[in-house]
Amino acid sequence: MIDQVLVLNSGSSSIKYRLIDMASRRETARGLAERIGEETSVLTHGGVRVERRLADHEEGLRAVLAAFAEHGPALDRVAAVGHRVVHGGSRFVQPTLIDDEVERAIEDLAPLAPLHNLPNLEGIRVARRAFPALPHVAVFDTAFHGTLPPHAYTYAVPREWTEKLGVRRYGFHGTSTAYVSRRAAELLGRPYDEVDSIVLHLGNGASATAVRGGRSVDTSMGITPLAGLVMGTRSGDVDPALPAYLNRVAGMSLADVDDALNRDSGLLGMCGANDLREVWKLADSGAPDARLAMEVYGHRLRGYIGAYYAVLGRVDALVFTAGVGEHDARTRALAVSGLSRLGIEIDPARNAATATGPRMISPEGAEVAVLVIPTDEEMEIADQVVACVGSRSR
Amino acid sequence: MIDQVLVLNSGSSSIKYRLIDMASRRETARGLAERIGEETSVLTHGGVRVERRLADHEEGLRAVLAAFAEHGPALDRVAAVGHRVVHGGSRFVQPTLIDDEVERAIEDLAPLAPLHNLPNLEGIRVARRAFPALPHVAVFDTAFHGTLPPHAYTYAVPREWTEKLGVRRYGFHGTSTAYVSRRAAELLGRPYDEVDSIVLHLGNGASATAVRGGRSVDTSMGITPLAGLVMGTRSGDVDPALPAYLNRVAGMSLADVDDALNRDSGLLGMCGANDLREVWKLADSGAPDARLAMEVYGHRLRGYIGAYYAVLGRVDALVFTAGVGEHDARTRALAVSGLSRLGIEIDPARNAATATGPRMISPEGAEVAVLVIPTDEEMEIADQVVACVGSRSR
Ligand SMILES: Nc1ncnc2c1ncn2[C@@H]1O[C@H](COP(=O)(O)OP(=O)(O)O)[C@@H](O)[C@H]1O
Ligand SMILES: Nc1ncnc2c1ncn2[C@@H]1O[C@H](COP(=O)(O)OP(=O)(O)O)[C@@H](O)[C@H]1O
Repeated sequence: MIDQVLVLNSGSSSIKYRLIDMASRRETARGLAERIGEETSVLTHGGVRVERRLADHEEGLRAVLAAFAEHGPALDRVAAVGHRVVHGGSRFVQPTLIDDEVERAIEDLAPLAPLHNLPNLEGIRVARRAFPALPHVAVFDTAFHGTLPPHAYTYAVPREWTEKLGVRRYGFHGTSTAYVSRRAAELLGRPYDEVDSIVLHLGNGASATAVRGGRSVDTSMGITPLAGLVMGTRSGDVDPALPAYLNRVAGMSLADVDDALNRDSGLLGMCGANDLREVWKLADSGAPDARLAMEVYGHRLRGYIGAYYAVLGRVDALVFTAGVGEHDARTRALAVSGLSRLGIEIDPARNAATATGPRMISPEGAEVAVLVIPTDEEMEIADQVVACVGSRSR
Repeated sequence: MIDQVLVLNSGSSSIKYRLIDMASRRETARGLAERIGEETSVLTHGGVRVERRLADHEEGLRAVLAAFAEHGPALDRVAAVGHRVVHGGSRFVQPTLIDDEVERAIEDLAPLAPLHNLPNLEGIRVARRAFPALPHVAVFDTAFHGTLPPHAYTYAVPREWTEKLGVRRYGFHGTSTAYVSRRAAELLGRPYDEVDSIVLHLGNGASATAVRGGRSVDTSMGITPLAGLVMGTRSGDVDPALPAYLNRVAGMSLADVDDALNRDSGLLGMCGANDLREVWKLADSGAPDARLAMEVYGHRLRGYIGAYYAVLGRVDALVFTAGVGEHDARTRALAVSGLSRLGIEIDPARNAATATGPRMISPEGAEVAVLVIPTDEEMEIADQVVACVGSRSR
């Protein structure tokens, strides 16, 4: 039996961690080492905050372990370490016990997610050195979409690109989507493999996924996390000829356009703010571009709901999750407005209620259950670690 | 009263033309000068075919007029010339009487459609010299989408791009979509402005448009005709980060990628054929990539039908038109499969019937009327020319 799992999420200049007790399904510690490599780094361990320079991930993790030693809890019941890895390519569609070969494969996938996989890998390396006796398991953000059928993951592009260059839809937010779609079935009291749902993970990044009986069958992000819904700073879908157009009329380089589509677009690009709370504030104070930004955001969402309704043919549940999905009642209302013919409606009072747990916000007896389910990627990673290590040790 | 309209569609090396008698609403002549500028050009005028070199559009049009003089019919009843122009930008949302200023404006829009607007303009120039006394009217393929609401035409990109560089969704196939959506209302015996429809123009190029009461409210093509559905050689939607990815992993230039997405992608890219008849033949002979190509094609269509269902909220008619839409019953069946919960179904016998006129292929009493309406862009252009010239001369 796995007692506790340490979950690590290593970014380019940060290590986020959570210690999870599997018996109680509770988090017993969490923290964040950030600004690693900068002049002054910051370690937050529960309520404790320390400023000091952390030169690299190695020093960062050592500082984390020192904080555990000094402030607790003890790490002696940790039985496995789970690592969030963004891109698993076509190969990794299950949680995977990490060895040197798996490390190399994660490195080989770096071109698909250069900003993510290499930092993820760095975190894995230092953690394997710190806990050499423990099993380390990689949980991939793409993995849940390993069930996409070929007609959903194949782009209409030259075959060489597909066959030799790994060009296909991968999808992201898989760990979160797996978690909330399962919780949705539980909330409905129905077997997971009988529930068809559309999951809207709306955070800074945002994605929509069509889930048929627990399997991802279509998803809005693509070969990278740029495609699909409007996001905080990412454009989501645009005409793929846009980079060539901007090069032609404004001499912009491909790198400049790609950078702008990822960092200066989305809500930020349209109205100067990327946090929905800020955007709504601007819209309410009358800023026309903020109003338009929310209309574009809602329009894109409704389009994807309709598209995935068509893909699924029928829908049991529409699930909102992540920062926006869990907390922003107005955006939820915007997303479903005009969809009553699809059986999708929300009860305004239920939608507006300040609640935090999993809940239904559609009217009693509605054809499609509209749900708000708080996501918990770390708990999902811990569960997958247990499944992986458990199955290997049997 | 306008008696006859000459409709011209000038491409980079061709001039297509039709002479239309407005009283009878019949075409009285049609022809094509092609391979203009090449070693040997070809002029087809009705049943007559002549091979000879046509150095430029000027010589091309002169040859066309010579063919009219020699083989008839007479052109003395032509009261106006209609020109198909691909890109009208944000300015031209109505058929427009051409003067020198309009010519300059069409030229200024060339960066938005470099392969189309300049040849269109060349055709306008030579035709105005040939018929200096007649009114010349430009009918823009983007114009019908002038009613798109801002939330449908605005991309989630930096405001400067939108405000200064003309970056927005324009949409194409507007003339065809206007024509068939109006015919659809007629077939249903209902006022045009009360019918909500989804129009699928499926030819070599392909687009979907949501039409609410005769007004385009969303459409799948974008700033260029690359976006949206899978086409003969165009990819339609892909992750907008794909160009940057291909540059990173394969050193491809932006121009190479853009070219490949426009010319070597779509059905051709996936399975080596771009004519649907050929693709089906390959699929039936067991070629797995042709089967997959059709599945991808159908999946994309169903997604857009669902998305536009959500955008419209309710739908009276789903309309198929253009080469594929009018003739390919299997593709129509593929497009609507699994959509019965949306009230969209076809009657297999009606769908398979070999008919050529406007017709209904949904079962009697179906919630959504599924229609096949042959398009006629030239007739629509002629009608718009009459509306434009008629209203000016009053
Ligand atoms: N009460 C709220 N109302 C509206 N938006 C909120 C609210 N709380 C958080 N958000 C949004 O959630 C976003 C963060 O979502 P989250 O899922 O935590 O982020 P990430 O995608 O980075 O994991 C914030 O940028 C903000 O836009
Ligand atoms: N009987 C048919 N079955 C399937 N596809 C057809 C059939 N007839 C024509 N097509 C398709 O229609 C396409 C041409 O459509 P059309 O609307 O005429 O072209 P364009 O988009 O160039 O105006 C052809 O490439 C072919 O794929």
